[in-house]
Amino acid sequence: MTDVKKEALKVSQEKGGKLEIRSKVSVQNREDLAIAYTPGVAAVSSAIAENKEDVYTYTTKKNTVAIVTDGSAVLGLGNIGPEAALPVMEGKAVLFKEFSNIDAFPICLATQDTEEIISHIQAIAPSLGGINLEDIAAPRCFEIERRLKESLDIPIFHDDQHGTAIVVLAALYNALKLVKKDIAKSKIVINGAGAAGIAITKKFLAAGAQNILLVDKAGIISADASDLDERHQEIAQVTNPNHLKGDLQEALKDADVFIGVSAGNILQKEWIQAMNDQPIIFAMANPTPEIMPDEAKEGGAFIVGTGRSDFPNQINNVLAFPGIFRGALDSRASDITDEMQIAAAKGIAAVIPEEELNADYIIPDVFHPDVVNIVARSVSDSARK
Amino acid sequence: MTDVKKEALKVSQEKGGKLEIRSKVSVQNREDLAIAYTPGVAAVSSAIAENKEDVYTYTTKKNTVAIVTDGSAVLGLGNIGPEAALPVMEGKAVLFKEFSNIDAFPICLATQDTEEIISHIQAIAPSLGGINLEDIAAPRCFEIERRLKESLDIPIFHDDQHGTAIVVLAALYNALKLVKKDIAKSKIVINGAGAAGIAITKKFLAAGAQNILLVDKAGIISADASDLDERHQEIAQVTNPNHLKGDLQEALKDADVFIGVSAGNILQKEWIQAMNDQPIIFAMANPTPEIMPDEAKEGGAFIVGTGRSDFPNQINNVLAFPGIFRGALDSRASDITDEMQIAAAKGIAAVIPEEELNADYIIPDVFHPDVVNIVARSVSDSARK
Repeated sequence: MTDVKKEALKVSQEKGGKLEIRSKVSVQNREDLAIAYTPGVAAVSSAIAENKEDVYTYTTKKNTVAIVTDGSAVLGLGNIGPEAALPVMEGKAVLFKEFSNIDAFPICLATQDTEEIISHIQAIAPSLGGINLEDIAAPRCFEIERRLKESLDIPIFHDDQHGTAIVVLAALYNALKLVKKDIAKSKIVINGAGAAGIAITKKFLAAGAQNILLVDKAGIISADASDLDERHQEIAQVTNPNHLKGDLQEALKDADVFIGVSAGNILQKEWIQAMNDQPIIFAMANPTPEIMPDEAKEGGAFIVGTGRSDFPNQINNVLAFPGIFRGALDSRASDITDEMQIAAAKGIAAVIPEEELNADYIIPDVFHPDVVNIVARSVSDSARK
Repeated sequence: MTDVKKEALKVSQEKGGKLEIRSKVSVQNREDLAIAYTPGVAAVSSAIAENKEDVYTYTTKKNTVAIVTDGSAVLGLGNIGPEAALPVMEGKAVLFKEFSNIDAFPICLATQDTEEIISHIQAIAPSLGGINLEDIAAPRCFEIERRLKESLDIPIFHDDQHGTAIVVLAALYNALKLVKKDIAKSKIVINGAGAAGIAITKKFLAAGAQNILLVDKAGIISADASDLDERHQEIAQVTNPNHLKGDLQEALKDADVFIGVSAGNILQKEWIQAMNDQPIIFAMANPTPEIMPDEAKEGGAFIVGTGRSDFPNQINNVLAFPGIFRGALDSRASDITDEMQIAAAKGIAAVIPEEELNADYIIPDVFHPDVVNIVARSVSDSARK
């Protein structure tokens, strides 16, 4: 076991988990008690009973997010159940607080049934300002998110899909600036057609991409194929406009961008040589990327990004979700729309001034002090429009 | 509006609610991030996936309580809904933290259907160490509590029923010490046959009382009556052993104890004169007691308690629930049994040394520094038995 993992176990045990719920008011005497609880609290409840919107004025709702999981797709560990998922949700809540001062708490559900999950989340919504869906397996995560967005008036965000997609889009914006290419004219190959690959595809399309090839183990997804599942049928209608067939190597010919959300070591440097000028390679499989950065460079890659912190250009969800929720809560948005998510991506990209952009610096560090504020402002401005 | 109510509104607005969720770990750099989140957290999740009981070792579960309401019976305000109930639940969470260092957060449910409430609470249980049911209307509160106790392996406690009952029992223990009477031989009249009255009756029976008269607007509840609802049929089997009939005045003849959980100004001092020697009067209707203390004394009451902080002997739930949950969590009890609740009552009573007991001091102040520890120890000792 690595030192980091040992330390994580030690810290979790010594502190008894990573979160604490604190009172913002002190209760030292009867006067304090009368204000924090009865009879004072009756005035606050009465005000909200008269005008339900006042729940945003007088309570924690406006700054509170539940991080909800069913424990079915936790990190790389898979379907480990709600109890084992709890440390991850605590960690996520820590990031919400430390990066954007949002009060987030874990809800680990004892069911993996789509309808039940929807029903439980709808039921707990009244005291929440937003809901972050986390580590819920595909395809049920799509249905759950869609239905909750329709039925609830608070922002719903499935970070595993959209968080990654937003940060990849941010990296792509800056990479395209450097190579002076237009997203609408770029040929973009996305390898891996699971939840993340589909989310990235949809986000890129919403951002103006027009020539995306989505590739899975069976090859380039095409509307001509007869054996596609429902999600891939849908995506086939809006990708692969030239009805190409073939495997990843074939897809990459003359491509401008490779996005990997698949598996380690599946991209060969020779295939990069067949790409268009100044290829952009985002190899995000974890912990082993689709191709190691040095090898990608040998193959001619101009810009390489990965999910790892030990290489340049780390594509990390932490760049997105704290500022996105901060902006959504601040503007009291009822949804986190595609427009708001694209605004977030532009915000992340804009953290780096154009004169500082270079092939090894297209995406800001997660600890860059401007990230959360710029993303939050971008999102709330977009929401207010 | 009183100053306290104005101040409660002001504090709630300025602070944006009364709770905050804090991280116990700092995230200032990549090393911190690796320990608080990935990859460190994977080791913690893996440990729990291998041994589910380790969720108590490594997470917040062991110190976390959800305060769950459906907003149907909030304070004296009634059915004001989940949003308007939130300030009360926040206040309760404040008391959990300030009195017994328990991390409690509100869950305000968007349903008042018994089966749905049960299902939602079962679903959110995996990350919780205990559940405090709050301000849920009768009779559904009974069914909800019973079913959750059967189906979940963490403590469930409906404070509105049991909290009051435990503190009243504590006050009764000390009052009976002063008048040198035995609970088993005392004639006890409980006026008000709603959730609180029934809970007090059951707790007193579990504590050894043998002659209780439960009285409602129709008079003394008796097994001879043909028009009782289900709950009163049940309670009639275990109260009123002499099959008495009549109203409250009739019930009080030769009684040793009056417990009021009914309405203001319904007890006349002349009726107290007809009670047994050294009558004990707990008049807990709020804000106006069944009889004012000075009037009760004029009628011959030896000991008077109320729910109010501006008279001696305040019977206040805050004396019970923080220590009860502290003890249940510390001993990792799977339930809060009658025995544990009676142990809590004895613990509250024992806070006052016998030599300090007097008619105006039978119950400790809620800020007495020993209350939580003594109650918690009493409860955990009882649980371990």
